[in-house]
Amino acid sequence: MNKPSRPCIAVDAMGGDFGPQVVVPGALNAAKANALSLVFVGREEEIRPHLDQADTTGVEVDVVDAREVVAMSDKPSQLRRKQDTSIQKAFLQVKKGRADGVVSAGNSGASLACGMFTLGRIKGIERPALASILPTEKNPLVLIDVGANVDCKARHLFQFGLMADVLAKDVLQIESPRVGILSIGEEEGKGNALVRDAYTMLSRSSLNFVGNIEGRDIFGGDIDVAVCDGFVGNVALKISEGLAHSLSRILKRELTTGVMAKLGCLLARDGFRRFAKRVDYAEYGGAPLLGLNGIALVCHGASNAKSISSAVAMAGTFVDNNANEHLVQGLTRNKELSLYGRGNGEASEAAASQELPKASSS
Amino acid sequence: MNKPSRPCIAVDAMGGDFGPQVVVPGALNAAKANALSLVFVGREEEIRPHLDQADTTGVEVDVVDAREVVAMSDKPSQLRRKQDTSIQKAFLQVKKGRADGVVSAGNSGASLACGMFTLGRIKGIERPALASILPTEKNPLVLIDVGANVDCKARHLFQFGLMADVLAKDVLQIESPRVGILSIGEEEGKGNALVRDAYTMLSRSSLNFVGNIEGRDIFGGDIDVAVCDGFVGNVALKISEGLAHSLSRILKRELTTGVMAKLGCLLARDGFRRFAKRVDYAEYGGAPLLGLNGIALVCHGASNAKSISSAVAMAGTFVDNNANEHLVQGLTRNKELSLYGRGNGEASEAAASQELPKASSS
Repeated sequence: MNKPSRPCIAVDAMGGDFGPQVVVPGALNAAKANALSLVFVGREEEIRPHLDQADTTGVEVDVVDAREVVAMSDKPSQLRRKQDTSIQKAFLQVKKGRADGVVSAGNSGASLACGMFTLGRIKGIERPALASILPTEKNPLVLIDVGANVDCKARHLFQFGLMADVLAKDVLQIESPRVGILSIGEEEGKGNALVRDAYTMLSRSSLNFVGNIEGRDIFGGDIDVAVCDGFVGNVALKISEGLAHSLSRILKRELTTGVMAKLGCLLARDGFRRFAKRVDYAEYGGAPLLGLNGIALVCHGASNAKSISSAVAMAGTFVDNNANEHLVQGLTRNKELSLYGRGNGEASEAAASQELPKASSS
Repeated sequence: MNKPSRPCIAVDAMGGDFGPQVVVPGALNAAKANALSLVFVGREEEIRPHLDQADTTGVEVDVVDAREVVAMSDKPSQLRRKQDTSIQKAFLQVKKGRADGVVSAGNSGASLACGMFTLGRIKGIERPALASILPTEKNPLVLIDVGANVDCKARHLFQFGLMADVLAKDVLQIESPRVGILSIGEEEGKGNALVRDAYTMLSRSSLNFVGNIEGRDIFGGDIDVAVCDGFVGNVALKISEGLAHSLSRILKRELTTGVMAKLGCLLARDGFRRFAKRVDYAEYGGAPLLGLNGIALVCHGASNAKSISSAVAMAGTFVDNNANEHLVQGLTRNKELSLYGRGNGEASEAAASQELPKASSS
């Protein structure tokens, strides 16, 4: 198999709650709209029928067979026993130069582990992190980490801040991103021990560090990057999704009670559609996994075809813009990365013990 | 001063962002509606004008002068130098038997510290915790801890679960509360080290423990108690508040674009009002501080008169129902409290070193 001429995304076709039936049409849709080529990785006999049904005109599509699938509930220890998984083989396509980026809606812990062991990490980054680009009242915000690393040290949070700063400059086109650390009070000294230590490191950096921010600042739009550990970020992300959905349901129920309200609701329909589009996380696609030597986006397990499409399109944009090279260059220019790092010592330890990082499954 | 015949709430009149001008009318409103008496604590010359302006017919009101105010930004170390604060003296009213409960919209760390040193803790509870009663799509949910303890051990989370279980039974009238631990995946083993250890303790307990829950489960209404450390809980609470407000603003903006939408909006007004009431946290008043030998509710710093009123009313309900005695009895009946506790050893250490707990300011 040769690499296609257009930017090529390796898509884990077995990932997510719905597998090939949403992944294949979703990815094809993005490929057509964004002039991308695709490699679907997974059980060929499950992928082909969906390809046969679809209109693939003008899209270079390949299929790489992989027999095994990582389940959402698989623990890192179980991962080691699965040798021929779709997620692992998707990363391998990038490693071999047959693809330029990976998209998976599977187990995010598995994506992190496979990404680290197949592509390796950017020099100086101890822990790759998941960055979610969230809609706010104004411009989008980067929340990092949203689930790759649940037990962090302060220097990891510092590294997350440096990576997200480059991402916000490069992808969101923000000249001097306002970076905050997610805490429980604005004043310095508020927060837990981890946050207080990371605060000190960030405040001494060259970043446009605005100090502690609170949960209520996330969606206001006056912050560009919010740094936290993967446990807090994952809870924050999921509680936001849950609340947005609950509020939509409550609103719909309230607004369909009574004839006048129903009529009003009909008239306000266009407004509602714009609103729904704004809070629909599917619009925002996947979360880039930053810190690997390559481009990888992780989608929500519950992704529908639209989310997959958004994520593949975003991966295409990352490839077109050389986003990962920009990340490496940005981090290299910023000499601060090595300030608190333990270099590659920890990496070799981890590799030596074959210890996989503990991560979330979504 | 004698104790009034009706249940009496000591109100920190200086607390919150707006002080006596919202605290006095808010508390009076609740006192009238719920047959309570009040002791306002704070600078008498700042309290009296608001009392003079108000209609106090039928409410027994007293004022206890306190010269100092704890600022939101005050650290525990600064607290020790302030001897005559309104929050400290409010707790003293309960200690002396002149009041039955405390309400403050001030620094929650100060409330926790003053509560612990004035009233003491329930036997076996190492860390009093803030429990927030949140609206969901179905019944209210108890989220504990929302900011009193930012660095917790697993046994503290276990104790939070036992306390919230009693609260949910007693105040929310739920026979067998479904208790979950807030994590980043449903399967056992997901989460950080703290959550995994607390999971084991909770799963061995007599509670109706449903295991890990995720952020998105909070507002669905299928859980009655969600346990987490005070850092995670505070971020979760504030991000929910922030998102609810942002969505309301976005919705309003979307729905007032275009003539048809405007008309629709007018017609749907009643539906909106019901919706707004449902997500308005002011309706739910204060967060009970559980684990003290006495009743105390902490309000949001940004509380308006309505929030104060809800909190004072809730404090009155707690007094009427002997909620704190029920908490003590419930914990005593459940012998598990001593399973992982360090008894009073830690308490005396803390008291001896005059170490104040680190807490949030909201």
